[in-house]
Amino acid sequence: MDKKRGKKSLNINPKSDMTYMVLNEQIERYQKRLKCPICNIEEKNAILTKCFHVFCYKCLKTRYETRQRKCPKCNQNFGGNDYHKIYIE
Amino acid sequence: MDKKRGKKSLNINPKSDMTYMVLNEQIERYQKRLKCPICNIEEKNAILTKCFHVFCYKCLKTRYETRQRKCPKCNQNFGGNDYHKIYIE
Ligand SMILES: [Zn+2]
Ligand SMILES: [Zn+2]
Ligand SMILES: [Zn+2]
Ligand SMILES: [Zn+2]
Repeated sequence: MDKKRGKKSLNINPKSDMTYMVLNEQIERYQKRLKCPICNIEEKNAILTKCFHVFCYKCLKTRYETRQRKCPKCNQNFGGNDYHKIYIE
Repeated sequence: MDKKRGKKSLNINPKSDMTYMVLNEQIERYQKRLKCPICNIEEKNAILTKCFHVFCYKCLKTRYETRQRKCPKCNQNFGGNDYHKIYIE
C-alpha cells in the first residue's frame, strides 16, 4: 500500500499512476462543484431566487431560521419565500 | 493501442484497466448530470422558477421564443419572467 497517498487507496500499477491521478482529480473537481459551499457536506439542492446562487436546502433553512438572512455569496437579503429546492439530478 | 476502446485512449497498463474504467464511468456520470437534458451540449445554467427544473439558458430562451412554453420535465407552463440564469459554478 502506498502510504504517501492520503486518500482511499486502490491497487494501481505505478506506471499508470499519472492517469489515475488525473482522473481522480477530475472527479474531485466535480464533487466539489456539486457540493454546498456553506457546509461542504450536502449536495447543492436549493436556490435563492433573489440572486440565483445555489446551496443546500438544510443550510438555507438553518440560516433563515437563525436570522442569517443574507446570501453567503453576494449578501443579498432573502425571506422565507426566497429559498427553494431544486432538482439538478 | 487498444482498438476495442472507443473513447480517447490513454496508455494504461491492462492490470489497472478496471480501475481506469470505474473512474471514467464516474466522470461520465458527473458530466451527464451537469449537462442540459434538452440539448445535451450546454451545461445546466438556468432554472424554471415555476417548477425549479434545471436546463441551459439557451434552450429555455429558444423554447420561450418559439412558444414551446412548457417545462420539458413536468409540463408546467412558463412565461418570460420564469426562466433565469443560475450559478452552479
Ligand atoms: Zn449546506
Ligand atoms: Zn447570492
Ligand atoms: Zn440546452
Ligand atoms: Zn418542470
